[in-house]
Amino acid sequence: MQDRAQVRIKARINKREAVLRTAAQVFNEKGYLASTLDEVAERLNVTKPTLYYYVKNKEEILFECVRIGLTMLQEAIHDVGVSGGSAADKLTAAMRKYTEIVTMDFGMCVIRVGEDPLPAESQQKLRRIKAAIDLEFRELIAQGIAEGSVKPCDPKIAAFTIAGAISWVARWYQPNGDLSVDTIADQCIHFLSTGLYQPVTP
Amino acid sequence: MQDRAQVRIKARINKREAVLRTAAQVFNEKGYLASTLDEVAERLNVTKPTLYYYVKNKEEILFECVRIGLTMLQEAIHDVGVSGGSAADKLTAAMRKYTEIVTMDFGMCVIRVGEDPLPAESQQKLRRIKAAIDLEFRELIAQGIAEGSVKPCDPKIAAFTIAGAISWVARWYQPNGDLSVDTIADQCIHFLSTGLYQPVTP
Repeated sequence: MQDRAQVRIKARINKREAVLRTAAQVFNEKGYLASTLDEVAERLNVTKPTLYYYVKNKEEILFECVRIGLTMLQEAIHDVGVSGGSAADKLTAAMRKYTEIVTMDFGMCVIRVGEDPLPAESQQKLRRIKAAIDLEFRELIAQGIAEGSVKPCDPKIAAFTIAGAISWVARWYQPNGDLSVDTIADQCIHFLSTGLYQPVTP
Repeated sequence: MQDRAQVRIKARINKREAVLRTAAQVFNEKGYLASTLDEVAERLNVTKPTLYYYVKNKEEILFECVRIGLTMLQEAIHDVGVSGGSAADKLTAAMRKYTEIVTMDFGMCVIRVGEDPLPAESQQKLRRIKAAIDLEFRELIAQGIAEGSVKPCDPKIAAFTIAGAISWVARWYQPNGDLSVDTIADQCIHFLSTGLYQPVTP
């Protein structure tokens, strides 16, 4: 049986995460500048002072939203990296995971808002996670070139091209629109894997 | 011979454009929130009151920077659309122009800052230009499918995938870095045209 202190701590963590998630949703819909903590409190049906029991201020909320989103991306690409299979299988799995995460609240916040509104020190912390994710992508691409599944290319440019195409999904995806995340992921990955043009037959 | 009034008007337009361009550079380097008109004035070696002779405020400057960048993209894709050649030729030319523009001051500002910090009405005006650009891209892709050069796909998803991959260049391109805009454009276009993976030979 859990003791009462543990139950309270767990409840606090869950409530904090609800505050952050709701804030991410507001940021994603309205942009960071136009978002207010009043609106976050209203959507959660709590008073604004209650919010401050879980979070310090708007800046801390954004930092946490972006940090959680980036950590989800990092864990996903790390898990893919240590899973079995060819580099091509891993790359395809990483592209799918990446698409799924950037269409979720925290992942979307990484792309739609990002670290730009934060102070320099916070920006640096978040950019270090970004750099680590980018490195994992480049390594997978380099492995793919070595195994012969990926065309010879500059892994840096290829990694940025993939990241850009998929990150953009966070900007145009509409949660209640016609296209499901699965359909978008299938078509994006197919496009990035095989290209726009029909192969020219000699 | 131009009369004096004309000369004065022309000089004013040039100076205003210098103010906007310098502001775009500051926004692109530091982010919109961290940028000040003091810094813009300093870089131009003028006083802050002088700036206000050419522009109303920071918001108007951002609106104009994004509007100019979007108009450059719109004109480029329009010019490509009315030029001769196959849809594939036009698409490739459009991707190159797009890459070039998003690595220039105003084009970069469209991607690095964008319309999010602006009031709703300004955002709507700018988003209308974005929607028009997107439509031209989709039409070129649909023409490419019809002529047989582009693989069957959803033109909406394909247009967003291309726009995302190329727009991302504005985020990671370093004007004084190792990679020239030409090299980046060549490799990005090659990647998007032919895909990441080696074709599987049956």
